[in-house]
Amino acid sequence: MYTHSLSASVCVCVNVINAYFFPLGCRYVSKTATKTQVEFDYNGPSMKTSVPGPRSQELTKQLGDIQNVGAVNFFCNYEESRGNYLVDVDGNRMLDLYTQISSIPIGYNHPALLKLMTNPNNLSTFVNRPALGILPPENFPDKLTESLLSVAPSGMTRVQTMACGSCSNENAFKSMFIWYKNKERGHSTPSDEDLRTSVINQAPGCPDLSILSFMGSFHGRTMGCLATTHSKAIHKLDVPTFDWPIAPFPRLQYPLEEFSRENAQEESRCLEEVEDLIVKWRQKGKPVAGIVVEPIQAEGGDNHASPDFFRSLRNICRKHGCAFHVDEVQTGGGTTGKFWAHEHWGVDDPADIVSFSKKLLTGGYFQKDELQPDKAYRIFNTWMGDPAKNLFLAEVLNVIRRENLLEEVTRSGKALLNGLYELQAQYSGILSRARGQGTFCAIDICDDETRNRILLKTRDKGVILGGCGDRSIRFRPALIFKEYHAHIFLNIFNDVLAQLK
Amino acid sequence: MYTHSLSASVCVCVNVINAYFFPLGCRYVSKTATKTQVEFDYNGPSMKTSVPGPRSQELTKQLGDIQNVGAVNFFCNYEESRGNYLVDVDGNRMLDLYTQISSIPIGYNHPALLKLMTNPNNLSTFVNRPALGILPPENFPDKLTESLLSVAPSGMTRVQTMACGSCSNENAFKSMFIWYKNKERGHSTPSDEDLRTSVINQAPGCPDLSILSFMGSFHGRTMGCLATTHSKAIHKLDVPTFDWPIAPFPRLQYPLEEFSRENAQEESRCLEEVEDLIVKWRQKGKPVAGIVVEPIQAEGGDNHASPDFFRSLRNICRKHGCAFHVDEVQTGGGTTGKFWAHEHWGVDDPADIVSFSKKLLTGGYFQKDELQPDKAYRIFNTWMGDPAKNLFLAEVLNVIRRENLLEEVTRSGKALLNGLYELQAQYSGILSRARGQGTFCAIDICDDETRNRILLKTRDKGVILGGCGDRSIRFRPALIFKEYHAHIFLNIFNDVLAQLK
Repeated sequence: MYTHSLSASVCVCVNVINAYFFPLGCRYVSKTATKTQVEFDYNGPSMKTSVPGPRSQELTKQLGDIQNVGAVNFFCNYEESRGNYLVDVDGNRMLDLYTQISSIPIGYNHPALLKLMTNPNNLSTFVNRPALGILPPENFPDKLTESLLSVAPSGMTRVQTMACGSCSNENAFKSMFIWYKNKERGHSTPSDEDLRTSVINQAPGCPDLSILSFMGSFHGRTMGCLATTHSKAIHKLDVPTFDWPIAPFPRLQYPLEEFSRENAQEESRCLEEVEDLIVKWRQKGKPVAGIVVEPIQAEGGDNHASPDFFRSLRNICRKHGCAFHVDEVQTGGGTTGKFWAHEHWGVDDPADIVSFSKKLLTGGYFQKDELQPDKAYRIFNTWMGDPAKNLFLAEVLNVIRRENLLEEVTRSGKALLNGLYELQAQYSGILSRARGQGTFCAIDICDDETRNRILLKTRDKGVILGGCGDRSIRFRPALIFKEYHAHIFLNIFNDVLAQLK
Repeated sequence: MYTHSLSASVCVCVNVINAYFFPLGCRYVSKTATKTQVEFDYNGPSMKTSVPGPRSQELTKQLGDIQNVGAVNFFCNYEESRGNYLVDVDGNRMLDLYTQISSIPIGYNHPALLKLMTNPNNLSTFVNRPALGILPPENFPDKLTESLLSVAPSGMTRVQTMACGSCSNENAFKSMFIWYKNKERGHSTPSDEDLRTSVINQAPGCPDLSILSFMGSFHGRTMGCLATTHSKAIHKLDVPTFDWPIAPFPRLQYPLEEFSRENAQEESRCLEEVEDLIVKWRQKGKPVAGIVVEPIQAEGGDNHASPDFFRSLRNICRKHGCAFHVDEVQTGGGTTGKFWAHEHWGVDDPADIVSFSKKLLTGGYFQKDELQPDKAYRIFNTWMGDPAKNLFLAEVLNVIRRENLLEEVTRSGKALLNGLYELQAQYSGILSRARGQGTFCAIDICDDETRNRILLKTRDKGVILGGCGDRSIRFRPALIFKEYHAHIFLNIFNDVLAQLK
């Protein structure tokens, strides 16, 4: 049992659970945190049926007459969900370490967001969705300054909102193509031939440029993004695509401190391949306008690389005149313990474009001045985002600051990762490669079938997890996930592993 | 003056304006309509400055430090906007015949939508945005049935929501590619080679399929959609694209009744070209998986074609085994006097896929059973739409039914188009080709420069219009636009034209 074998953690774990139910003796929860938690979080999982329960199954059948339901896990009662706990339609209450594919920043029904909804001054923002590109609301510049620009990555003062992650990356790619062509022209005035041919899908108006991406990456599912996505076949099968270069992403060996030489070599190999591909694609007549990369490949299996790797990649871009696009759709918003994962690289000029969505509630991207298109209507669509989502984001950022949530994430992430290390030592036949930054953690399971069995068993015991890659489990709790939540999870996870052994 | 030259309309126009201010004597406004109008609409334009006024100019400068503002018209006070009237930050109140690029269905701050916001049962839907594909809310099947399925096109019982118009079309294209490949295989099981090659952007996993589109079309700006968009160079310039076939769209001559033979010939020519392109692209090894078409090319210049044309196009798809995708992003939602523009074709089986967004408030598409992908995660993303938008849509549909808005649109559209015919007769050197269905109307101006001058002058007199194509003006009022609004506009338009002459 977990409490017997993890001697160092025994007391912590038991204490914390006790502390939770008897807050007076609590060592791990600050007073501030306790206050918020007591306000709107539940005190633990509570299971009434196996999941999906009968009501979820009934609804899945009903929805199956309307759309493909192959991916539906269960149906939710969002009204009853609170904080870190998702409640389903069969009355099961589960600790949520997946948070709607990493897209709920501060838990369910956070009081600050509910309050915002009842402010009559905000009604009009919800009811009248503007075409932001032509008719923005009066408070739009202030709202952008207050929300997105307050977390702008180093060196970036420009931001464009979009409706979702895919649209953000699509438009970021377009900005890189436009920037590259203007650079090539030496000015921003297209020729008549450029204009004439672009309308009929021909060069030179539609040039044969490319974006370099990495094996295992995920950048979205619309056709431009999909050409740079290489995590799973099912995403791409049967869809026409572009002949764009794909570089290997480092496959690090763990524990990192034991394999530093091997890992450095592996990263060098990948970087050399990047440069080779840039040269090769230029020779093929399809120059690389930009490189797109995730700071941690998420969907592809939580693949990390060192700050050195990313710094070198940034330099390769400078050397070859490509734009550098860091896709923080999954890593952004505080989950790694810093607001942006690229902050861990420790550089002043991390990227030319940084895209976001998910936890930021609105999609979009930051960019350096020179990446902003020179003319109107080059980057454009009807809505260009949604001010109602900016409103929520501004409040989420207030909560993050007020409750020091980045520190909390660092603390609870440490508890989570240390717990995973210990379980991995104990169940070495099942678990390996525990890794993470903040609460953005993952662990590998011996095989795909066991991974899926663990996910279901853990869920039936009241914890929601997600898979990624071939056989990894990814942890994506909200930013209000505390140390004691980590211990609730670790206890349950231990039970599942013990029964599996 | 307008009232002198349009003898038949004089009384109507003057009466209606009078009737508006003195509702008791009103002939044109039904009691139901009056009630709603009195509740939340204004009684006419009111201009204080030229547009953009000083405050708008100041804010444009401020926003210019954050993003490209080349397309910004002016800044809005959405709180003060009501019904058909958009109020700007300088206190100007304008009759809005453009409605945020045709995306406001029932006017600004409609009481029914405001009421929905204050219902505490709805709060959770706004605050907790789910990953709909995996964890839908309990009421999701019912909400889809109540809203989108209640307006499903003939022959379609399946619907997939998406965040915006571009994402809707991108995923509709993917569904057509998947359907086409499975048809070609004779089953839905990909080979190992299909799976292996798809991840690295190679055939056969990523096949060389194509979508046939029309010159002048607009289907969105993400890279798949953009490959089928051919309305303006600025949308496509410098962005890599696919070698997909582009057919001519009929260029009808007006008045239609005088050119019936010529127009029928023109449509035949285009249809022949469609068939030739399908054969040619099959021979090139890039078979046409689907054809995408707008019922009225909107952004491209409000280009209409006859019901016969679309029926023949549908038959060509059947004959050649291509899917038929009708893009109703701009035409859908009631603005043509029917809920879908394709209903004017009078066929039971109008399409395989119908996409929507804008006035429907959520993006998405309806599809026939056989177009639904066979497996989970083939059509997928984090949010898959937004239940908060479905909530608004359900209420919009209630209002449309309760207030018989489709009949109103037919009536006010007739007043608008008849007024345009008369003005066109009077100002034949400036205006031509007045055309429309419902309030989805347009008119051509002698040249681009005059068009833009008219747009600005009309705006300074309190009416917002939009341009489309090379030199057209498009009319896109909300569904609550009444006959007397048409006359307010016609009066002002006449003044502008008279001064221009």
